[in-house]
Amino acid sequence: MSAHPPILVDIKFNPEGVARVLKTAFADRGSINLADPSDRARDLREAEYALLWKPDADLFARAPNLKVIFSGGAGVDHIIGMAGLPAIPIVRFVDRSLTARMSEWVVMQCLMHLRGQYAHDSHQRRREWAKLIAPEAAEITVGVMGLGILGQDAVAKLKVMGFNVIGWSRTRKEIAGVETFDAAELDSFLGKTDILVGLLPLTPETTGFYDSGLFKKLHSYGALGRPVFINAGRGKSHVEADIVSAVRDGILGGASLDVFEAEPLGPDNPLWALENVFITPHDAAVSEENALFRHVEAQIARFERGEPLQFVVDRAVGY
Amino acid sequence: MSAHPPILVDIKFNPEGVARVLKTAFADRGSINLADPSDRARDLREAEYALLWKPDADLFARAPNLKVIFSGGAGVDHIIGMAGLPAIPIVRFVDRSLTARMSEWVVMQCLMHLRGQYAHDSHQRRREWAKLIAPEAAEITVGVMGLGILGQDAVAKLKVMGFNVIGWSRTRKEIAGVETFDAAELDSFLGKTDILVGLLPLTPETTGFYDSGLFKKLHSYGALGRPVFINAGRGKSHVEADIVSAVRDGILGGASLDVFEAEPLGPDNPLWALENVFITPHDAAVSEENALFRHVEAQIARFERGEPLQFVVDRAVGY
Repeated sequence: MSAHPPILVDIKFNPEGVARVLKTAFADRGSINLADPSDRARDLREAEYALLWKPDADLFARAPNLKVIFSGGAGVDHIIGMAGLPAIPIVRFVDRSLTARMSEWVVMQCLMHLRGQYAHDSHQRRREWAKLIAPEAAEITVGVMGLGILGQDAVAKLKVMGFNVIGWSRTRKEIAGVETFDAAELDSFLGKTDILVGLLPLTPETTGFYDSGLFKKLHSYGALGRPVFINAGRGKSHVEADIVSAVRDGILGGASLDVFEAEPLGPDNPLWALENVFITPHDAAVSEENALFRHVEAQIARFERGEPLQFVVDRAVGY
Repeated sequence: MSAHPPILVDIKFNPEGVARVLKTAFADRGSINLADPSDRARDLREAEYALLWKPDADLFARAPNLKVIFSGGAGVDHIIGMAGLPAIPIVRFVDRSLTARMSEWVVMQCLMHLRGQYAHDSHQRRREWAKLIAPEAAEITVGVMGLGILGQDAVAKLKVMGFNVIGWSRTRKEIAGVETFDAAELDSFLGKTDILVGLLPLTPETTGFYDSGLFKKLHSYGALGRPVFINAGRGKSHVEADIVSAVRDGILGGASLDVFEAEPLGPDNPLWALENVFITPHDAAVSEENALFRHVEAQIARFERGEPLQFVVDRAVGY
């Protein structure tokens, strides 16, 4: 018998990808993979660590002796409200690669709106040569909401690309060279923002947060004409009916959405066909299994050496 | 009579834009705008400076007393081969805004290929939820050809976005943190390149340079599968029939083109409808009239103070 009990894994990712990478991960203790039929009925009472993404509802009842929970992604809203959640540390997934991918997506979406990619694409399909004189990035203010690790990386890269960048977080963060705002200054932040980039965690405060009232407070008549809404945080933070009406009514000039109120987005959803709206299927920053398992191994090693865990969730604020 | 003769302006841009901005430019000497019907028959013999973009064929015969020629853009291929071109300095247009816009375009195109924007867009139009697991930028080598002011700015920004970046120029340039190659090392450069970014000037050596033989030397079986060709330099540097066959035969996985052998691109051209090929109508980095006129004023002021002109073209190499 191994000196360490196996790690409990219940991550609703691509099962083949998880199974393949699990073969070589956690070599010192092995794993129980609930996606594997031969593991599904295992006694989970010995498990001390659980790696979870949208776990089974009875998971905590079956595994009462957990010491640490690891989230399979940057968000923890899939766990935080679960019945029976034990009062033990929850560690978010933070990874250089995940952060880099999110910033790729954010910068690309901002550039596509800046440079009129939707119009260029429409002209291309009509075989129409029509020059567009876009403003340059320096004429556009991108307002980033959420200044954690993802938000700060996006801010830095948007600045390098020439955008004027401002930032908002619940409690003010100091970032060199960036004007930042806190909860009480939300309207002032929105009034300066041409492109709003949402990277907020899902909490009771952020549920339904991006709505018609908020869109109307964004900066209009800037160099882009109308403001743009970009969300790569959580879909339940925005109100999709309000996005649809804001785009149709010209309150928003466009949007980019990677997350949705219900996923997958149904084929009848009007978002698919809105003008100047880019849809990606929640793949802006996909957790890569190798990186995830290395992160969990590193955090367990810290924990067992008696060092503090990193990236622990603050239950009081929900992220 | 003004102490200085007026500046001769013959730039085939949007005539309304030029006329509007010319009203307030060159206040100390005025201008002769050949796009203005009332100026077309003017005696040009007094002109000492000419600002040109695709000038009339008889321009130099009509204006024999020029001291300096200013190009309306970064390239000078529109002037260099003209009959009667006098042996006087030719100054390229170099501008912070022009450089920033070109890098926006280059970074956006590289990100769109990295992140499968063509596939995402196709799925969106079919209302299909299909996650794509793209490689991250660090797994892709972008090879930038042409390491002048535009190329070096693009290199720096692509690196910040996480790409592995290498550079090629006729004579080797040293760039901190970037592997660079010279003319003799072209094949080695191509063999490492997943995404080729062309920012070369048009010269006899670069005419028809990007062809089937070159595309076959690019790195295949990298993280993108097949290599991508991006050209924002000059259209006559590539062979469009070879791009079409390379994309159709799977030698290239995609392309982004802002420049073409003949512009505007005709509606029957097969490039418009190729899979994973993004077309923009030579608007990646449009010369902005205000910035152009300020640049010319600044260079004339230097010249008249007896200081050396900047950004002077080397006639021997053609750029």
